[in-house]
Amino acid sequence: MRFAACLEYDGSRFCGWQKQANTITVQEAVERALSRIADEPVTALAAGRTDSGVHAGAQVIHFDTHSKRSLHSWLRGANSQLPEGVALQWVVPVPGHFHARFSATGRCYRYVILNRAVRPTYLAGRVVWDYRPLDTRRIRRAARYLIGRHDFSAFRASSCQSASAVRELRTLTVHRRGQWVWIDAQANAFLHHMVRNLVGVLCAVGAGEADPPWAREVLESRDRRRGGVTAPAEGLYLTRVDYAAEFSLPPAPPPCRYW
Amino acid sequence: MRFAACLEYDGSRFCGWQKQANTITVQEAVERALSRIADEPVTALAAGRTDSGVHAGAQVIHFDTHSKRSLHSWLRGANSQLPEGVALQWVVPVPGHFHARFSATGRCYRYVILNRAVRPTYLAGRVVWDYRPLDTRRIRRAARYLIGRHDFSAFRASSCQSASAVRELRTLTVHRRGQWVWIDAQANAFLHHMVRNLVGVLCAVGAGEADPPWAREVLESRDRRRGGVTAPAEGLYLTRVDYAAEFSLPPAPPPCRYW
Repeated sequence: MRFAACLEYDGSRFCGWQKQANTITVQEAVERALSRIADEPVTALAAGRTDSGVHAGAQVIHFDTHSKRSLHSWLRGANSQLPEGVALQWVVPVPGHFHARFSATGRCYRYVILNRAVRPTYLAGRVVWDYRPLDTRRIRRAARYLIGRHDFSAFRASSCQSASAVRELRTLTVHRRGQWVWIDAQANAFLHHMVRNLVGVLCAVGAGEADPPWAREVLESRDRRRGGVTAPAEGLYLTRVDYAAEFSLPPAPPPCRYW
Repeated sequence: MRFAACLEYDGSRFCGWQKQANTITVQEAVERALSRIADEPVTALAAGRTDSGVHAGAQVIHFDTHSKRSLHSWLRGANSQLPEGVALQWVVPVPGHFHARFSATGRCYRYVILNRAVRPTYLAGRVVWDYRPLDTRRIRRAARYLIGRHDFSAFRASSCQSASAVRELRTLTVHRRGQWVWIDAQANAFLHHMVRNLVGVLCAVGAGEADPPWAREVLESRDRRRGGVTAPAEGLYLTRVDYAAEFSLPPAPPPCRYW
């Protein structure tokens, strides 16, 4: 029996999603909790392998098990076993051909910036601080060059293992409210560090360190060395994963906001 | 020379505002930072002596010093000395008769509740989780009995040292957006634990454990034992302190929201 589940987590407490030796990862915590409830070893696969420090409002996973439990037992049981900082939002049965990663048709990420002179306090680790006044009109002009189906080699980490660097960036929007600036990115899929590298370029433009057409130059160079800095992980949230309607997954909760 | 300053802090990192032996308090951290910049011992007095775990979006303090520094030096200097989780938002000169606590004409607190079946993750410690579905219309009906100038003995902690329990509760409003419920309370001043005790009664009514007129019964009893539970500290934010216009203090930033 295959199940899909939605996960919310505080990335600052984990060394990313993917299981590794000698570190605490979300995957390890979730597999341990589900295995305990299933009373057999359970492997969990995620839609997006978020990096260390990256949060999730609605990560989607799937897992297989022979154990028979009510959906309520999976949800409450796993949450009682999970450490602080990670919780399942829902669990639903899915057909055997559902795959959290390969069935996903789109992903949304939100990047949250506290844009003021003074560093964050009660939201430290949950947002990124940028003391440079960011001009959202400039960011929007730069973003227009990046939307579409492109080779995003200039925005991928050197460690990225994807065979192709072509992705379809469907939306890249920026909003401000008071001292908060947030950037939403939606694509069929993202390369390793792609959102953070996009944000690095957009914020450099927003701060006046480069002009909007620089975003196009970076993109067309297909050269990571031409890009800007990689924006820090702690402002990034995986906010939604899309699947075909046939799977009838519950909707993602509205993405995190702080204003 | 007297200065007023505005403080933002993460209450989960401190044992409240007030200096005590063998614990880390906000007052101690702030006085240590200001003393370092002043190069002389500095005492800081706050508008509201927040409890352990209670956050501040805009706590106001005042301090006296003989040192001559630019306002920018006070702000940046103190922030460079302050630990993570607390930062000054502004520093301004004030007349010698200004007193952060006694000149304050009003205080606003916001209480933030994550109202859903599953506990918080990346906002753990910054909001309070209530899994009971809260009916905001019931909360509003209960709140109406509490607004006004009353003896709030039933809502004060036994440790409260105030000579009088009479306070003027000017507003007590509740809002919901999605899974978030927030309660705003404004008064001339609050007794010890008063907001958390008000929220305890309001949430019991919102959850259907008591009817709205129970709020009036509790109030009129003037007996703390008749009240509900004290709501946890971590959902509470001091969001604004009001002073007479003659002091020309900068406005408080808009209060914390998470939705």
